[in-house]
Amino acid sequence: MKSSITLTAFERSPDGGKGLARDTRVRWALEELGLPYQVRLVSFTALKEPAHLKLHPFGQIPTFEEGDLALFETGSIVLHLAQNHSGLLPAEADARARAITWLFAALNTIEPVILELQTAKFAEGQQPWTEARVPLIKNRIRERLKQLADYLGKQNWLDGEFSAGDLIMVSVLLRIKASGLLDEYPNLATYVARGEARPAYQRAFAAQLAINQPSA
Amino acid sequence: MKSSITLTAFERSPDGGKGLARDTRVRWALEELGLPYQVRLVSFTALKEPAHLKLHPFGQIPTFEEGDLALFETGSIVLHLAQNHSGLLPAEADARARAITWLFAALNTIEPVILELQTAKFAEGQQPWTEARVPLIKNRIRERLKQLADYLGKQNWLDGEFSAGDLIMVSVLLRIKASGLLDEYPNLATYVARGEARPAYQRAFAAQLAINQPSA
Repeated sequence: MKSSITLTAFERSPDGGKGLARDTRVRWALEELGLPYQVRLVSFTALKEPAHLKLHPFGQIPTFEEGDLALFETGSIVLHLAQNHSGLLPAEADARARAITWLFAALNTIEPVILELQTAKFAEGQQPWTEARVPLIKNRIRERLKQLADYLGKQNWLDGEFSAGDLIMVSVLLRIKASGLLDEYPNLATYVARGEARPAYQRAFAAQLAINQPSA
Repeated sequence: MKSSITLTAFERSPDGGKGLARDTRVRWALEELGLPYQVRLVSFTALKEPAHLKLHPFGQIPTFEEGDLALFETGSIVLHLAQNHSGLLPAEADARARAITWLFAALNTIEPVILELQTAKFAEGQQPWTEARVPLIKNRIRERLKQLADYLGKQNWLDGEFSAGDLIMVSVLLRIKASGLLDEYPNLATYVARGEARPAYQRAFAAQLAINQPSA
């Protein structure tokens, strides 16, 4: 059956299938909610062409289409799904607002400093200062991770049950799993592992891997 | 009459009253919605103390309290207000989701690259590479501004009527007004001026100025 939800994803993800491209976050949300979807793959060239820019003015993935509605921005798409289907936000109004706060915290307080590390490597990798700068960026990341670890303590999830806030926070933290930074904060490493272990995450990860490593 | 909404703001804003501290965004939203509020001022020292960290695990402002509900993250607070009061989001569901997408685009696609400029100046201002790096950062900002300017075209606002998406986008762009970067994209400069001209913005700006420059 053809699903009414269509996402876009990279024809070939720059991470080669590690699940860090942002379509994985939306796939994960859809899997948690039990919603079928289809994916339209987009080449790097096509990202900057008018047809795609009409869906996403900044020429990125993912985009989300359902009927007449077209959205971009992963945070917005995940929030839209979570607010319109049951399973990723608490029912009680105050708890719901707090879960949404964590989604914003992941995207606006934690991810920007992590993205600086990506920018240093990919946009400034050849610059003479990058080797000396990376430790400074890592220290700024540590500052945020320590605050997050202090807050999380021994809780399984950020605020009660697993929510869209955890989904995005785990996805953001996965970006620094390979760097070893996460392991400096054992409760955060365990928190991320707890997210990765969810069957919905596993299905989302496998679906993007099948595109990026067809023989895997 | 004591309002039931309490925000926190800097006792002394690092920008000296230019309106760039994030409480201005929430004040602006409250003014647009006609909601009274009160402000509790917090010193830099108090930001990192347990009483404030309980409200904001990352030790920042603003926070939002109303009855038993406590939120942080400007995006989340503005979204919460916009979703629960009439005036900052369209009534129609699809248009509402698109306006929320612009709020995320402002915070997650435009602001991070702008914040890199702030980080270069404030966290790495004394580093030998900063002078050479700043033009690279400015070019990355220009890339985003051009895409935004191309999308906006001759529209007054991002998607129909003024929304919470415009409120956050204008607030984010105000960060680079002094740099001159905005003036390279005349329709964006006009867009920001259109936001600043709103009576609700004027009231929000004046309220934060009264704290930071009591004699102004």
